Amino acid sequence: MVYEFKARRRVEFSDTDMAGIMHFSNFFRFMETAEHGFFRALGYSIYDKERLPGVGWPRVHASCDYHRPLRFEDEVEIHLLVAEKRSKAITYEIRFNKLGGPDPEEVARARLTVVCVSHAADGTMRATTIPKELEQKIGVAPAELFEE
Amino acid sequence: MVYEFKARRRVEFSDTDMAGIMHFSNFFRFMETAEHGFFRALGYSIYDKERLPGVGWPRVHASCDYHRPLRFEDEVEIHLLVAEKRSKAITYEIRFNKLGGPDPEEVARARLTVVCVSHAADGTMRATTIPKELEQKIGVAPAELFEE
Amino acid sequence: MVYEFKARRRVEFSDTDMAGIMHFSNFFRFMETAEHGFFRALGYSIYDKERLPGVGWPRVHASCDYHRPLRFEDEVEIHLLVAEKRSKAITYEIRFNKLGGPDPEEVARARLTVVCVSHAADGTMRATTIPKELEQKIGVAPAELFEE
Amino acid sequence: MVYEFKARRRVEFSDTDMAGIMHFSNFFRFMETAEHGFFRALGYSIYDKERLPGVGWPRVHASCDYHRPLRFEDEVEIHLLVAEKRSKAITYEIRFNKLGGPDPEEVARARLTVVCVSHAADGTMRATTIPKELEQKIGVAPAELFEE
Repeated sequence: MVYEFKARRRVEFSDTDMAGIMHFSNFFRFMETAEHGFFRALGYSIYDKERLPGVGWPRVHASCDYHRPLRFEDEVEIHLLVAEKRSKAITYEIRFNKLGGPDPEEVARARLTVVCVSHAADGTMRATTIPKELEQKIGVAPAELFEE
Repeated sequence: MVYEFKARRRVEFSDTDMAGIMHFSNFFRFMETAEHGFFRALGYSIYDKERLPGVGWPRVHASCDYHRPLRFEDEVEIHLLVAEKRSKAITYEIRFNKLGGPDPEEVARARLTVVCVSHAADGTMRATTIPKELEQKIGVAPAELFEE
Repeated sequence: MVYEFKARRRVEFSDTDMAGIMHFSNFFRFMETAEHGFFRALGYSIYDKERLPGVGWPRVHASCDYHRPLRFEDEVEIHLLVAEKRSKAITYEIRFNKLGGPDPEEVARARLTVVCVSHAADGTMRATTIPKELEQKIGVAPAELFEE
Repeated sequence: MVYEFKARRRVEFSDTDMAGIMHFSNFFRFMETAEHGFFRALGYSIYDKERLPGVGWPRVHASCDYHRPLRFEDEVEIHLLVAEKRSKAITYEIRFNKLGGPDPEEVARARLTVVCVSHAADGTMRATTIPKELEQKIGVAPAELFEE
């Protein structure tokens, strides 16, 4: 059972905006980097046609609190934790820790709730139970990790 | 005093992802379309070097609840409402209404909290009171509009 | 036979980068706005499941020459011209004309070559002749328009 | 004198579009990853306020030929070569090599011409000679590398 994953990215020029900082929408793109790396660490792909055919993970909620900006070429650790696991949904907490200083500095904290769906042949999708072999690999982070 | 603004966008091909729907991060880009149109409707630009020199509006919170997907070429009305106005911060609610059917259909609802800052010459920024001539033009939407 | 189309966009905050201008990659996103509007003007969608099932238009070449920057809130006319039409491919020229001054000012000029493909059930795609009912609607811009 | 640089990226979900492949505009974002890594390898930043104050590198030409699509989670090597160096401009060739198979497979090849500019205090910019200490570090790739 794995309940966390850490990814790293460097802020690209194209991630910045005219205010000189990473555009706030790009934190949401960065979240997925960690989420999809987490799935690979479990031995799956988030879009796994062979082992999870027809399964998708649409987002039903996404939020982010921004404490400090990120700037061009900053290196950031994207720390994903499983905050909640239900039969058909997972909620992640994602912490953005800026690297390069004496200590990592949390610059933003986010939540992402995704629902497991199956796609019918006609393109419609409906919520479905997380496939058991995958679900058994996903842990939930200990409560004390969220008490900071 | 103006407390709302409606913008329209059509979902572009580049807004979609391999799941065939608008990528969830792009809702945050669309929010800004309404926010910045709101400022233009007030007679300002969100980045107004002449009338609001050194003033910026970094985001401290952004969230979105997704009810239904948006697809390529869908037309969407982005309805921004001022939910809260404080001396140094504004919270917007943004409703995404898909057009084209008999009635607009709300597909997502978002919140965005921005802080008014002034930029010092050295690039640092600090929260500051919203300039009075701008603040006087910004209303707050009636509470009943949020009771749906 | 239609050989041109004009779309309009306003440069969004999220289109800019830390240099204070529209990021060069976004001109390529804007090109598609005109290309897809052109298809709608012909009575089709670029992704027309009903009338053009399995047909796609991958890009084989894209280029852009940049003369002047675009900035936040600039309005730009995206003028698409059909430069060449072959049995399985179309080449567009796209001119970006900044509006708002006494005359439109060309700030960039681009080329885009797309190939008509059909998608097989297994996901592979191969070049195919442009469907006749669509091809008959697409003209080629007169040579003198390219002599500027 | 350094004349090449190799960067690596994995195609993100947000890089894909509804056709199931990386959107063509994102190849231009990926080019910059290699260009800016090249500058770091030379000991600079592309936006180096301390050592190259006021210097910028706007693009005057960008083009890409696409041979094969890139898909979600593909790993790609972005191989940048200095194709031409002039007093005020540099032209790069960038080759996108998909990894993961028995051999890297070139999926796209691009050109990027950037001009060295200095920014005046009023925001205007004009072409300027590449600063000597930087210019001396930049080589030009041997002609035979372009004969493939």
